[in-house]
Amino acid sequence: MASTDKPSDLEYASSSTPSAPKGFDYFKFDVILRFLLFAASLVAVVVMVTSNETELVLYKGRPVPQPAKFRYSPAFVYFVAAFSVSGLYSIITTLASLSVIKKPELKTKLLLHFIFLDALILGIVASATGTAGGVAYVGLKGNKHVGWLNICNVYGKFCKHTGGSIAVALFGTIVTVFLIWLSAYNIHTRIPK
Amino acid sequence: MASTDKPSDLEYASSSTPSAPKGFDYFKFDVILRFLLFAASLVAVVVMVTSNETELVLYKGRPVPQPAKFRYSPAFVYFVAAFSVSGLYSIITTLASLSVIKKPELKTKLLLHFIFLDALILGIVASATGTAGGVAYVGLKGNKHVGWLNICNVYGKFCKHTGGSIAVALFGTIVTVFLIWLSAYNIHTRIPK
Repeated sequence: MASTDKPSDLEYASSSTPSAPKGFDYFKFDVILRFLLFAASLVAVVVMVTSNETELVLYKGRPVPQPAKFRYSPAFVYFVAAFSVSGLYSIITTLASLSVIKKPELKTKLLLHFIFLDALILGIVASATGTAGGVAYVGLKGNKHVGWLNICNVYGKFCKHTGGSIAVALFGTIVTVFLIWLSAYNIHTRIPK
Repeated sequence: MASTDKPSDLEYASSSTPSAPKGFDYFKFDVILRFLLFAASLVAVVVMVTSNETELVLYKGRPVPQPAKFRYSPAFVYFVAAFSVSGLYSIITTLASLSVIKKPELKTKLLLHFIFLDALILGIVASATGTAGGVAYVGLKGNKHVGWLNICNVYGKFCKHTGGSIAVALFGTIVTVFLIWLSAYNIHTRIPK
């Protein structure tokens, strides 16, 4: 991140208000990042849920309609559950972050709780992205060693939705890492030199 | 974690040495957790790499020896790569953590860097655990909707190794979450009340 020499200048600049915590107000960036996490979670869940597709597949010599749904795979169900949680979490924490912008005395304690919860959410969303990505890769490429056929030549729309959803989810995971970095850096600027 | 009322007592207890940072020395727990992460990473990689198994499988009516190896699946290759990185990282940071136990003036800056890097490592190991877990679950249960057969009835040893490795990896991921919590709480105790 940025160099650690900066806070001393900022500390000097805000020294006229002794009750306010030292340093630049990073809570605006926090709100923006949390809103991005909310948007990414919402898009990931909506795109995954709307991936249903029915195609005619040969079964015993005759074509039968065979649907592909996200809930046929436990990996995608976990993905939707995890990003529903992170979407809800990001709404609550955006509101919490907005509510303390005017209350500097609560910020330090909130930052600590943000790091605790963000680390937990990072574990959940990163593993969900990995799980869905692993299964989607098998769907895309197959695995000839164990005879798992790729399905993306049949279910084109389903694969596009799944892939797009996972890409957005990866973005959301990276945003969560940045949220932890921002909170940690923010809490670090409050320590006197 | 623990209540935030404690640091004030500890602050009082250590007020006789003004140059030392306030609060109990959490670096011992940090070293223990980092060593646990190293052990978990090592076990996860070794158990996954030694999962090779060759079984006779019917192919065109006659039994042929068919091996199962972790490197046949990109998910397991990513898993091994990620936990090799986290193992190496945990050695380096254990040494870094040990080296500052006697140097309190470097601790605050090191804690910030630890949170930055731990968050990155958490993203990597959580997604790797998820990826391998997602593919291993397909191997265990199969997926009848897309005709992917379960392989654990044939490759028993391979599945036991893979499952054990993922369980240890999950433990390592949880340890990484605790590492972030510990660093965040430690850095929080350095802020004057």
